Amino acid sequence: MVDGSIDGFWAVVPAGGAGTRLWPLSRSSSPKFLHDLTGQGRTLLEQTYDRLTPLVDDRFVVVTGRNHEQAVRAQLTALGPDGVIAEPSPRDSMAAIGLAAAVLERREAERGEDLVMGSFAADHVIPDPAGFRRTVQEAVVAAREGWLVTIGIEPTFPSSAFGYVRQGAPLHGHERACVVEAFVEKPSVSVAEEYVASGSYRWNAGMFVCRPTVLLELLAAENPDFTAALREIAAAPERLDELWPSLPKIAIDHAVAEPAAAAGRVATVPGSFGWDDIGDFDSLAALLGDPEKCNVLGDPGLVLSQESTGLVVPASGRVVAVIGLDDVVVVDTPDGLLVTTRERAQDVKAVVAELKDQGRADLT
Amino acid sequence: MVDGSIDGFWAVVPAGGAGTRLWPLSRSSSPKFLHDLTGQGRTLLEQTYDRLTPLVDDRFVVVTGRNHEQAVRAQLTALGPDGVIAEPSPRDSMAAIGLAAAVLERREAERGEDLVMGSFAADHVIPDPAGFRRTVQEAVVAAREGWLVTIGIEPTFPSSAFGYVRQGAPLHGHERACVVEAFVEKPSVSVAEEYVASGSYRWNAGMFVCRPTVLLELLAAENPDFTAALREIAAAPERLDELWPSLPKIAIDHAVAEPAAAAGRVATVPGSFGWDDIGDFDSLAALLGDPEKCNVLGDPGLVLSQESTGLVVPASGRVVAVIGLDDVVVVDTPDGLLVTTRERAQDVKAVVAELKDQGRADLT
Repeated sequence: MVDGSIDGFWAVVPAGGAGTRLWPLSRSSSPKFLHDLTGQGRTLLEQTYDRLTPLVDDRFVVVTGRNHEQAVRAQLTALGPDGVIAEPSPRDSMAAIGLAAAVLERREAERGEDLVMGSFAADHVIPDPAGFRRTVQEAVVAAREGWLVTIGIEPTFPSSAFGYVRQGAPLHGHERACVVEAFVEKPSVSVAEEYVASGSYRWNAGMFVCRPTVLLELLAAENPDFTAALREIAAAPERLDELWPSLPKIAIDHAVAEPAAAAGRVATVPGSFGWDDIGDFDSLAALLGDPEKCNVLGDPGLVLSQESTGLVVPASGRVVAVIGLDDVVVVDTPDGLLVTTRERAQDVKAVVAELKDQGRADLT
Repeated sequence: MVDGSIDGFWAVVPAGGAGTRLWPLSRSSSPKFLHDLTGQGRTLLEQTYDRLTPLVDDRFVVVTGRNHEQAVRAQLTALGPDGVIAEPSPRDSMAAIGLAAAVLERREAERGEDLVMGSFAADHVIPDPAGFRRTVQEAVVAAREGWLVTIGIEPTFPSSAFGYVRQGAPLHGHERACVVEAFVEKPSVSVAEEYVASGSYRWNAGMFVCRPTVLLELLAAENPDFTAALREIAAAPERLDELWPSLPKIAIDHAVAEPAAAAGRVATVPGSFGWDDIGDFDSLAALLGDPEKCNVLGDPGLVLSQESTGLVVPASGRVVAVIGLDDVVVVDTPDGLLVTTRERAQDVKAVVAELKDQGRADLT
């Protein structure tokens, strides 16, 4: 066992989402988490694994689509047969994380273990993994007491791209944990400025730590059939294909986190380890470097830039020359090329939609 | 013989120049004139041929580098063995056009014909070929009288990218021809505005019409050895490789046109048939269409543009998505990609220079 791993703590890593705002780098056939988006020689999935294994040893399970299982196993060769839960089809995060919870709950019952699970997306970037692990350790302590614990990222700017967590009273006997009063949706920038100024709001990074049974019971309080179906699949895996399509397509935030917060069942531990979900090429550019430079993700020898700033991804092996453009985004892949600006990075998803409309789903 | 062709009139078409401002479309291995830059299904060389054959029938000779002879013949399959003069190395326009003049002068002497030659670049665009031909017919009439005749393009805007011809007194007995007082170099925009306002200046498109002997004698007045060497090569083609490297590298404008104008030997015929030398992607964009649109040279089905204007050349077969950029230039080829703005189009040559510096001449 790796020094410092937490007894009975499991990492659950939902790996889904096409990352359409990162087209043409990310595709439905090869989503964001399979790519090295930080230029460090490790994909986001591999970095997620690297970050978590010191805490969980081999208690690491990826929940992903069947079409991605092979790619996931090719990157994480240390995973055992139970290291991947393969979804027959995408049914959003509640089904994915809920099924992992049901599987772990069953394991807990069979082996008489006390388990805690932490759910962490496969495609986030965390510059300070040690800080991340210290925060998770605090979250696990609160989770053992029965809380649904979310890690609240300390905001570094008034982002309108993230949801927020409003924290309330400190949790008795804990160093930094607080009760969560509410989850709030992505605000406008002006509202976000108020949130940040108040000091009571944190970014909701979708990181949840809890006992599997706590998650399933919180879900059951809203939708008992959902929990029942998840437990049936865990008890009889051969019924997965039969039962899976009946599960509601809903995000864990709406299915569990928001109602649980309203019921006073959610705690949060603040995290200040840097964090980004790389939602689009604008945030990727910000992550990679200097806004006054032309940043390259890939081989800098392929890029000739003159008086340009922004992000160039030379992923096809061709020479890319960029002249006289500020905050430009150029993403060059073997079958698709994107040219836009950091400001318009969110509109990339519309291109993907248009390609689908044109019957070019092969490119998405 | 094609109806309307002019007895004894030869077209001489110098086909050289790498067109470095049109990289990565134009390369030293595949220069501008070999490409279809107007999207009409004919290359610039083929369009030059189409435009001239009604005037010259099969009296058409291309002067090009040995490395391009095969490509020229592949495009102009009707050319006979004498239809291409292959230069051992590039020695600028005086040597190229002068050698053609010497070859034609010799032919004239051998066959007792009265010849007139017209020199027209292989890579210019002329939207009104019939208007062009009417102008050339006028020029030939003046050329038979011994004038070096240049076609002066009526300026449509105060360009600082072209040289100008200042016209003087009308030529007696001619409808529109005038004496040329001087050739002037590319002016500033403000000077160009004065030129255009005066009504006395025309663009120098480098189109010269004259008797071969007139050209060679005008050259001899400045540099008798140059003319002598050209005549020696015409008389003994086997000495081409020996004599060619000794010829001065000089443009016909400096070697002949400017001193001849000073000596009162140059006439001009005004042309208003539209004309462009497609010097860079800015002029190509202007030529192709609507400044308020994203113009495509190639298959429009490959380009997805949203709120963008400018020029996209999808020449690699890949999908190109452009979002939120005005006056952008995107040129996508199998081994090189250019992203810039129309305003910076002139700076493309610097990229080519940098590639050469980096030992990537294979890409230039």
